[in-house]
Amino acid sequence: MEKAKILDALKEGAIQEANFEDIKYFPFLEEWKDIPRGTVVIEERVIPSYPRIARIMRIASGVPRHFKGPFLVEEKVDGYNARIAKVSGKMLAFTRSGLICPFTTDRIPDLLPTQFFNDHPQWVICAEIAGPENPYIEAHPPYVKEDVRAFVFDIIDEKGNFLPPLEKWEIIKAYQLPAVENYGVFEPQEIKRLYELLNRLNEEKREGIVLKSLDGGKRLKFVTPFANLHDIEVSSELLEELPPHFYINRLSRLIISLDELGKKCDDRLFYEAGKALLEGFEDALNKFKRQRRIYHTFSCRFHNPERAEALLQLLNRASSTIRVKKRSLIRENGFWVLTFDKVFLRSTSLLANLLRGQAVFD
Amino acid sequence: MEKAKILDALKEGAIQEANFEDIKYFPFLEEWKDIPRGTVVIEERVIPSYPRIARIMRIASGVPRHFKGPFLVEEKVDGYNARIAKVSGKMLAFTRSGLICPFTTDRIPDLLPTQFFNDHPQWVICAEIAGPENPYIEAHPPYVKEDVRAFVFDIIDEKGNFLPPLEKWEIIKAYQLPAVENYGVFEPQEIKRLYELLNRLNEEKREGIVLKSLDGGKRLKFVTPFANLHDIEVSSELLEELPPHFYINRLSRLIISLDELGKKCDDRLFYEAGKALLEGFEDALNKFKRQRRIYHTFSCRFHNPERAEALLQLLNRASSTIRVKKRSLIRENGFWVLTFDKVFLRSTSLLANLLRGQAVFD
Repeated sequence: MEKAKILDALKEGAIQEANFEDIKYFPFLEEWKDIPRGTVVIEERVIPSYPRIARIMRIASGVPRHFKGPFLVEEKVDGYNARIAKVSGKMLAFTRSGLICPFTTDRIPDLLPTQFFNDHPQWVICAEIAGPENPYIEAHPPYVKEDVRAFVFDIIDEKGNFLPPLEKWEIIKAYQLPAVENYGVFEPQEIKRLYELLNRLNEEKREGIVLKSLDGGKRLKFVTPFANLHDIEVSSELLEELPPHFYINRLSRLIISLDELGKKCDDRLFYEAGKALLEGFEDALNKFKRQRRIYHTFSCRFHNPERAEALLQLLNRASSTIRVKKRSLIRENGFWVLTFDKVFLRSTSLLANLLRGQAVFD
Repeated sequence: MEKAKILDALKEGAIQEANFEDIKYFPFLEEWKDIPRGTVVIEERVIPSYPRIARIMRIASGVPRHFKGPFLVEEKVDGYNARIAKVSGKMLAFTRSGLICPFTTDRIPDLLPTQFFNDHPQWVICAEIAGPENPYIEAHPPYVKEDVRAFVFDIIDEKGNFLPPLEKWEIIKAYQLPAVENYGVFEPQEIKRLYELLNRLNEEKREGIVLKSLDGGKRLKFVTPFANLHDIEVSSELLEELPPHFYINRLSRLIISLDELGKKCDDRLFYEAGKALLEGFEDALNKFKRQRRIYHTFSCRFHNPERAEALLQLLNRASSTIRVKKRSLIRENGFWVLTFDKVFLRSTSLLANLLRGQAVFD
């Protein structure tokens, strides 16, 4: 990106200066002209954004429609996206929107071997950070039982291009980077093989797959029926907070994917879907009646306690409808363990009004 | 309403001329200045709109908040709203939006005794029309087993004012008008009595109650847990057609109302809620795979077959996302029975795209 463009963006207010420790940087928190959301300008470098991946809901029609030749299939891990880079000698992790994440940055040494960056100082690692102790999302893969782990799924070179999938896997192996599972190369007509894979992933309660053309130019995602139900279950406390299509889209995807995998809705599924949708909201209501707020408690581990404080600040600044309240920051097993509540202001005030007997037109 | 105002509305395009048989009339299909949606100007008369009724989700807090003195409680019947009037000697029924409904109009002689209008030619009867054979909605009360019935719940006098509730009930009795159930006068502190009533209505699978101040100035509604589930169940074919909050609002109301009535979500409810949400959409998907469209079949009875055709025209004009297709119009037991499909274009094309494997960003 040319300097002139960045100066333009600054002048037009498209980017603002952000700070992390002694580093000054410029994240594009929103798309601006042809610069995608999440792009970061930092110390004379540009960290490219990670692109959104389109979804298909049918394998048998969608795969041959979008892929004319062989493609790689990788696991889709249920976590949050981080881009990891070494900038001016310092390891940093960026969120999807382009902010430096104090938590992920703090934990990079635990997440992956960083000698990779000695050989490729200008490259960027794209990884899903997943596990029960993360500050962002409530879902996590069943095989991460505590803390978080990194699952590398892409590498961006010094020119800002993704390594082609097979080349990327050579690098992942050479540097022993922790990575998503690689299910190998498929041909567009191998629908049955994809069904077998997806049925297995569904039984293993995994999120789904990402399909990548071998030239790296095309990516598509497909999620398992399980993952649709799981997303609803972990979010049903927020039934009056999240946009309603969050739940409805997952219900229709659930039905459409079950149908393709040859499964019918049975009584067990009806029960599980009803429970996933209702139980959390009932719990939230009961919690609200005692504590007058809708909140969720998060916990995560830090080496540096100042970064725990920086995370809380970041989360508070990032949303006008979520307020973060620290519960505790205590030393435990060699870490600083931060525990905090995210208070969801929209559903808190909505529920307060409804329970107060306010009349609404709907 | 003064003539000048109507001429203004015509000039500004706020109303357009509509026609029904040999009658010319002017419905306010949208609110305009201080004239509410649904107001109708017809043959030198103004038929007032029926106002929206606000909802409360909690009885114990909401009732004393909104009523400082005694109020009447009436059944809320699950049907569609019609205003019935005699205009220039002709009995007519108007929809909520102000159009003359050919179906309801055709059936007025079966719905209620019209000698009422001999004594009160300028009055308007407000009734819920409910039953399995109606052209508008899929839900209906369990005690209407076939065709439709009218349930009067309000009367508007020649000045455009609602009769106060007790006076209205005198008229209903005097003219033997078919009416919603009258549960009597309550005091704001009679919460337990309201709970008992609502528990009974819930068991009887009724929709809920409307609370009306004795001066007729204030109306509020409250629906039973059952009705929330029932609405979802009869609409789940349209999971990708209706706005997502249709379903989510009903789920949260279900939980909030069960909680107030002292019931907990149990396994039976989880099962029923999941089934209500998913079964219809699975059926719709299977129907779509055979017939390439999402539709629902309606049936209703007419005396005059021309009015059946007029209804189809009205329905086709009323929505840009619903197309109506006649299946049959046949003579049966003294009626003309019209059967038609409403084809839901939005979910039809969405589902076609998804099943075709189209990639979507969401």
